[in-house]
Amino acid sequence: MLRPLLVLALWLCITLSTTAQQHYDATWNSIDSRPVPQWFEDSKFGIFIHWGVFSVPAWGPTKSSVYEKYAEWYWWRLLDPKAETYAEFNAFHTKTYGKDFKYQDFVKGFTCEMFDPAQWATIIQNSGAKYVVLTSKHHEGFTLWPSAQSWNWNAVDVGPHRDLAGDLSDAVKAKGLHMGYYYSLYEWFNPLYKSDVNKYVDDHMIPQMKDLVTRYKPDVLWTDGEWDHPSETWKSTEFLAWLYNESPVKETIVVNDRWGKETRSKHGGIYTTEYDLVHDETSVGKKIEHPWEECRGIGGSFGYNRNENLADYSSSEEVIHILIDKVARGGNLLLNIGPTADGRIPVIMQQRLADVGAWLHVNGEAIYNTRNWASAPPVKADTKVFYTRKGKDLYAICTKFPEQAFTVTGVNSSAKVSLLGYAGKVNYTVNGKAVKITAPVLNPANNPCQHAWVFKIENAL
Amino acid sequence: MLRPLLVLALWLCITLSTTAQQHYDATWNSIDSRPVPQWFEDSKFGIFIHWGVFSVPAWGPTKSSVYEKYAEWYWWRLLDPKAETYAEFNAFHTKTYGKDFKYQDFVKGFTCEMFDPAQWATIIQNSGAKYVVLTSKHHEGFTLWPSAQSWNWNAVDVGPHRDLAGDLSDAVKAKGLHMGYYYSLYEWFNPLYKSDVNKYVDDHMIPQMKDLVTRYKPDVLWTDGEWDHPSETWKSTEFLAWLYNESPVKETIVVNDRWGKETRSKHGGIYTTEYDLVHDETSVGKKIEHPWEECRGIGGSFGYNRNENLADYSSSEEVIHILIDKVARGGNLLLNIGPTADGRIPVIMQQRLADVGAWLHVNGEAIYNTRNWASAPPVKADTKVFYTRKGKDLYAICTKFPEQAFTVTGVNSSAKVSLLGYAGKVNYTVNGKAVKITAPVLNPANNPCQHAWVFKIENAL
Amino acid sequence: MLRPLLVLALWLCITLSTTAQQHYDATWNSIDSRPVPQWFEDSKFGIFIHWGVFSVPAWGPTKSSVYEKYAEWYWWRLLDPKAETYAEFNAFHTKTYGKDFKYQDFVKGFTCEMFDPAQWATIIQNSGAKYVVLTSKHHEGFTLWPSAQSWNWNAVDVGPHRDLAGDLSDAVKAKGLHMGYYYSLYEWFNPLYKSDVNKYVDDHMIPQMKDLVTRYKPDVLWTDGEWDHPSETWKSTEFLAWLYNESPVKETIVVNDRWGKETRSKHGGIYTTEYDLVHDETSVGKKIEHPWEECRGIGGSFGYNRNENLADYSSSEEVIHILIDKVARGGNLLLNIGPTADGRIPVIMQQRLADVGAWLHVNGEAIYNTRNWASAPPVKADTKVFYTRKGKDLYAICTKFPEQAFTVTGVNSSAKVSLLGYAGKVNYTVNGKAVKITAPVLNPANNPCQHAWVFKIENAL
Amino acid sequence: MLRPLLVLALWLCITLSTTAQQHYDATWNSIDSRPVPQWFEDSKFGIFIHWGVFSVPAWGPTKSSVYEKYAEWYWWRLLDPKAETYAEFNAFHTKTYGKDFKYQDFVKGFTCEMFDPAQWATIIQNSGAKYVVLTSKHHEGFTLWPSAQSWNWNAVDVGPHRDLAGDLSDAVKAKGLHMGYYYSLYEWFNPLYKSDVNKYVDDHMIPQMKDLVTRYKPDVLWTDGEWDHPSETWKSTEFLAWLYNESPVKETIVVNDRWGKETRSKHGGIYTTEYDLVHDETSVGKKIEHPWEECRGIGGSFGYNRNENLADYSSSEEVIHILIDKVARGGNLLLNIGPTADGRIPVIMQQRLADVGAWLHVNGEAIYNTRNWASAPPVKADTKVFYTRKGKDLYAICTKFPEQAFTVTGVNSSAKVSLLGYAGKVNYTVNGKAVKITAPVLNPANNPCQHAWVFKIENAL
Repeated sequence: MLRPLLVLALWLCITLSTTAQQHYDATWNSIDSRPVPQWFEDSKFGIFIHWGVFSVPAWGPTKSSVYEKYAEWYWWRLLDPKAETYAEFNAFHTKTYGKDFKYQDFVKGFTCEMFDPAQWATIIQNSGAKYVVLTSKHHEGFTLWPSAQSWNWNAVDVGPHRDLAGDLSDAVKAKGLHMGYYYSLYEWFNPLYKSDVNKYVDDHMIPQMKDLVTRYKPDVLWTDGEWDHPSETWKSTEFLAWLYNESPVKETIVVNDRWGKETRSKHGGIYTTEYDLVHDETSVGKKIEHPWEECRGIGGSFGYNRNENLADYSSSEEVIHILIDKVARGGNLLLNIGPTADGRIPVIMQQRLADVGAWLHVNGEAIYNTRNWASAPPVKADTKVFYTRKGKDLYAICTKFPEQAFTVTGVNSSAKVSLLGYAGKVNYTVNGKAVKITAPVLNPANNPCQHAWVFKIENAL
Repeated sequence: MLRPLLVLALWLCITLSTTAQQHYDATWNSIDSRPVPQWFEDSKFGIFIHWGVFSVPAWGPTKSSVYEKYAEWYWWRLLDPKAETYAEFNAFHTKTYGKDFKYQDFVKGFTCEMFDPAQWATIIQNSGAKYVVLTSKHHEGFTLWPSAQSWNWNAVDVGPHRDLAGDLSDAVKAKGLHMGYYYSLYEWFNPLYKSDVNKYVDDHMIPQMKDLVTRYKPDVLWTDGEWDHPSETWKSTEFLAWLYNESPVKETIVVNDRWGKETRSKHGGIYTTEYDLVHDETSVGKKIEHPWEECRGIGGSFGYNRNENLADYSSSEEVIHILIDKVARGGNLLLNIGPTADGRIPVIMQQRLADVGAWLHVNGEAIYNTRNWASAPPVKADTKVFYTRKGKDLYAICTKFPEQAFTVTGVNSSAKVSLLGYAGKVNYTVNGKAVKITAPVLNPANNPCQHAWVFKIENAL
Repeated sequence: MLRPLLVLALWLCITLSTTAQQHYDATWNSIDSRPVPQWFEDSKFGIFIHWGVFSVPAWGPTKSSVYEKYAEWYWWRLLDPKAETYAEFNAFHTKTYGKDFKYQDFVKGFTCEMFDPAQWATIIQNSGAKYVVLTSKHHEGFTLWPSAQSWNWNAVDVGPHRDLAGDLSDAVKAKGLHMGYYYSLYEWFNPLYKSDVNKYVDDHMIPQMKDLVTRYKPDVLWTDGEWDHPSETWKSTEFLAWLYNESPVKETIVVNDRWGKETRSKHGGIYTTEYDLVHDETSVGKKIEHPWEECRGIGGSFGYNRNENLADYSSSEEVIHILIDKVARGGNLLLNIGPTADGRIPVIMQQRLADVGAWLHVNGEAIYNTRNWASAPPVKADTKVFYTRKGKDLYAICTKFPEQAFTVTGVNSSAKVSLLGYAGKVNYTVNGKAVKITAPVLNPANNPCQHAWVFKIENAL
Repeated sequence: MLRPLLVLALWLCITLSTTAQQHYDATWNSIDSRPVPQWFEDSKFGIFIHWGVFSVPAWGPTKSSVYEKYAEWYWWRLLDPKAETYAEFNAFHTKTYGKDFKYQDFVKGFTCEMFDPAQWATIIQNSGAKYVVLTSKHHEGFTLWPSAQSWNWNAVDVGPHRDLAGDLSDAVKAKGLHMGYYYSLYEWFNPLYKSDVNKYVDDHMIPQMKDLVTRYKPDVLWTDGEWDHPSETWKSTEFLAWLYNESPVKETIVVNDRWGKETRSKHGGIYTTEYDLVHDETSVGKKIEHPWEECRGIGGSFGYNRNENLADYSSSEEVIHILIDKVARGGNLLLNIGPTADGRIPVIMQQRLADVGAWLHVNGEAIYNTRNWASAPPVKADTKVFYTRKGKDLYAICTKFPEQAFTVTGVNSSAKVSLLGYAGKVNYTVNGKAVKITAPVLNPANNPCQHAWVFKIENAL
């Protein structure tokens, strides 16, 4: 007799709670209550793509402070006498193009004739990344899709005369990967932005974001350029309420925390760091509690920088170690590539992605779908053993091959240890909550991988 | 005792009447009640300038119907399969630039390096023209001034990187001439226009027109591209009310009749014809009653057309005859020149302007400040004697040298006849209201001018 | 009996004399003995065309001394610090193109997409000119035909990718006009010329000239750039011996006097002047005795100069007066036009040519096939009556309409006078060897032409 | 008493023999008698650089037969309907540049603005290479130095306007490396070559080669494009006699075997292979007896090919194995890099070079100054142990880590074995002429290098 009632009650609970989850108010309290869709944290590794008119000069200094290495800031640095690299940018520009050559003139060099979206998607898939974030519009205001709000300053009207954002989206989704877009809230030199930010938000920015979301149904909307104004000015919560309640991607979309000068590491979706810099330094501690993502280039720039040589690029080992570090801390890595103005992913970047992919091919089990291990020793600069967990299993990821035995404490006595990619036995001893692991003898011929080795501790938790 | 009251009363009258004149409602009745400022009808001769991105391909057919010869319509013809010249435009375009070359790509060829506004102003002044109308923005939407509404699609952001509209305005005004702007209400391919004309009007068009007026204080605002919508959609009367009541040029500005699909030859300021075509054919008769202006190129195109050769240009004689014809009918002539993409007035156009100027130097008295003579015989295709009047004087302008004596009827018996530019006597006999004029013997050595000869009949009226 | 012998003797005489005429030695004595083909002196009026890479910058100063106005000398002036206009050229170049832009880079702008040789030929034919001389190669060394000696520096390999010289030749000949080529012996910056003039002459220059002659069979070979070396270095007499003895145009070809630093007004074919300047001032007197030709631009430059405005161009009247002056002195006029880089004859030049053509249409009888009249009063700066003769007839060409009667002395008593283009009678009285002519009364309606009037004095000689 | 005479006799012998060595006749017998300078065979590893106008389109197919992958053959493939890849090249060209775009038009894109010769030299030095061979002129005829014979078709007159050959030479020599030049004897489309090969050789080719040698004093002159004609036509022995007897580099210059259609693997200096292809297949056996060199790209093209992605490049391991293979066979490896049109060495190539350099840093002792070991087992496709020798020492280079002990036969009983880069002991046993070597236990932490391991067998010979 009770059974039907129970079923009804359960059904009501589920229905109501679902319904309740589905409506968000335009307040941070409500917006922040939406959980980040699980696919994001499970993915761990995404590819950021910075592509735009800045890919034409594709130049930046390589010895400056972090932000001033960004080639995608070319236009700004050229015109900002206070920039540390102002003189450097201007010297290059004048020597190479002449002083009367304006930034907008670069657009004719944005040709993209070699752009092959299917090939890009294959490269990304083989890297082991699970999602892509493409600059639909950077601070220059140039859109990679035919935005009605950016007439004659988008990739269909001028330059390549092609819907770069749409073509890549199709190809990426065809591979079963998640597709997303970066979108800059502000535009450095847009007169509407400079003269009337409210009108800019209403007539330009919000329509663009809605168009982007509606047109391509992305899984990520990665905003930026929010720092000039509070989120109220940007009408961020209104937009997010629309995005979460009404948009076609309301269930799956992931956003970040760049929605106003006060929001980083506080509001929105995932928290973001950039070259390890966190906007709100006081809230670093929060990272553990909240999904977050580190973004960075393989070199010092996001946009392609022709001035970067081998020494300016992280090695494949460094990139793999960065991925491990971020995942062990509970974050994702959004690793950037900067295509060229003619539409190619530089082969050195293909090499880095392939090497990460090869490592993940062996060790992906310790990365995907894992979470950070709360009981792990704190990660420090000289940490060489990192931990992730999944279900009952724990993964000890050694970024330096352990010549000496090492001990993991806080695990079950029934734990069993193996080395990913290696069929042989691993010697270990369990002593109470501690397991002492001795790496097997690996020579160059039977070494399963380079750069980092993963000891899986089954039934550890 | 009465005197102060009288003064006060007079003062009130003047003040009130002035005040009354100065306020216009946003209705056609009110707008149309404003008289066209007198300077315009007194000027008779102005120079139209079509310059823009279309000056880069600078190409049009020369054997088509009137409108399809317009090189400034290049973009539209290329994309309109229904155009009579669609195939011709596309054949030229593909052969010369390749089929993947888009119209917007032309902007890099709009260099204007030879543009010398002072030299232009001198050429115009020497033509005898009294005002200038420059295309501040044609249907392509590209502005010759740094319009905030046309970011990256204006002459300062891209192309010449120069405020062409402002620089020419300064130079023209420095010569004591009136400066004005052509402005296209619609923009063929502006997505905002195409998707939401109301928003376009509010956020794009009206702000642009107000910016143009406020920034450069022109004497003429010459609108066009109004045919898609009624004036209500364009909010024309609201704008004109602002222009007449509040703008810095409220006293002096002259506008035309292109304010909505129903307005030509009906509402606004001056009525307009174009290559003798009148929009509302039924209202041609009205022209006599209302200030009007004919606009046309020296050749068949407004925008510079590299495809036009000598035979496609009107001769100097033809241009002078056109001017005479229009003025005798009560109109002005707005004669167009089409500068090149590198910023020059083609020398053949300089030649035509100089020849008109030379003729006006001798005969300007019969043109400037005159009005048409209501009692003149109707002008027909084979008319060779045209009339203008000024005060008590009448001018008989012969576009063919009169070998035989000719008679002018309807004049005073005290009339006296002379030939402008000729010191000798003219034989004439007055017979009642008729004066019979015999041209003097002119040989090539004492002929005061070419192309047309003016007999001044003093005290005729 | 004698008859056959006589015929044989005559036949021998003719054959031998013809044979004798047909062989020339490589000495100036022999070369100079060849008469200038009669077609040349009969033609009187030719069109010079300067076209090349210099047509791309198409710029020169307008206020300098004669030679320094030449836009076709752009490359040289830019690099010659001793040039009067060095600073001016460099200022323009740096401002417009940047200092790193080299002259050779201009070639990509030499597009010629509007070039229509048939239309050019029609324009030239309508001018009344009887021959054309096109710059096959100017001092820059760039050839307008696919010269094997100028690989990758000719109009087929680079720039327009078209045989400009050949295509124009076909069109000009199709109109029944004579076609010729200008050819610069030296090349300013050709390393072979600079390092080894003898090898340059043997391997580059002579092969080019023979190729040009053999390939296109021109009627004129108009050399220049000879001043650095004596004719011996250029091997001029050897070349001319080939040209006169062996080339396919040996009967008809006309050459000039620019064959070595010592040859102007002394050796070769016709003597040349340039903007009234004669190279060897001491030999001006010779001109009367020898066919000669004046060359000049309509403006101050041969190559198209975008910097020239209306005031820099000669008026149609001035051009017609120049033609009359030269013909009356026994010379030809080679009037230059400078096409644009995109392949058009500027319409102002079309206008000048058409006006000359209109004048010649009425008065050509006084120009073509005439010779100067040895008994004419010497031509001075203020001369207004010029003379030519043909058979028994004399032509008095008045460049100012004669208001007063004027007298021509040295004519037969049976002379009869008429006005070309005028059907009416001309009053004249013959008194001994003198005829006194009174111009008829011409008014603007029956005046046969502008600019100059020709009184034909039949049976005068 | 005898002693002074003996000294004198010896002195005479040495002097005469030296003198005798120093003179070569223009016969292959004499030319071939000159030993290849020792520095060349000692160097083992050089860097080839293909750079020219072909670096602008920088495109080739990646799936064709070997030679048809060469991007530097773009011009030829485009125009040769018999080429396997004709359709592919034309499809790319037309789609990307339009069919009217000619190869010569690419030169404006050869900008080289990022070219930093000192940085290139550092990259090359760090690769462990000892010499450089740059294309001074490829078959296109475009020279990277200001050749008087290639006026307006060289890198100083057009394109980058810079002496690329000279600037790189200075930088390479400053690092203590040997600098050399590739030079194509023939030029596909040079009209002089096509019409008169003898004149081409005398006036163009020989002067260019002498200019190159005299101007830059290279250590290598690497000819190519010899196949159309026998060496007699190219006057190769005459040139080589000059080079060996009179040129400033007569003592040090190294040449190859590409001097006429009959000379490969027969005459000249070193013998050459290319992607393992040997011209004269019957003479492969000779290689052992004669210095030789394999040249190849890192990918399938010499000139930079934008169409090559990661899979088209050899991995660092593959490149190292190729080097080992060639050296073990007695040859050199001339590994090619293809810089970009803007003057950069693609970073993926920097990566490959750095990896080779890192391997050579540990193992260079087994490469430089060694010779092949005549007693080594023949190298086969599955060979994993390669041998080189130097003095008494032998090097066994394992391209696969030897998990099992392996035996080297034919060595002294006093031989001692160590592993380069590894401080620990190596177990080995000597048994008669055989030494059995057991690799030490290397784990990822103490492994001295990747890709190949070298066992040094001291006192082996």
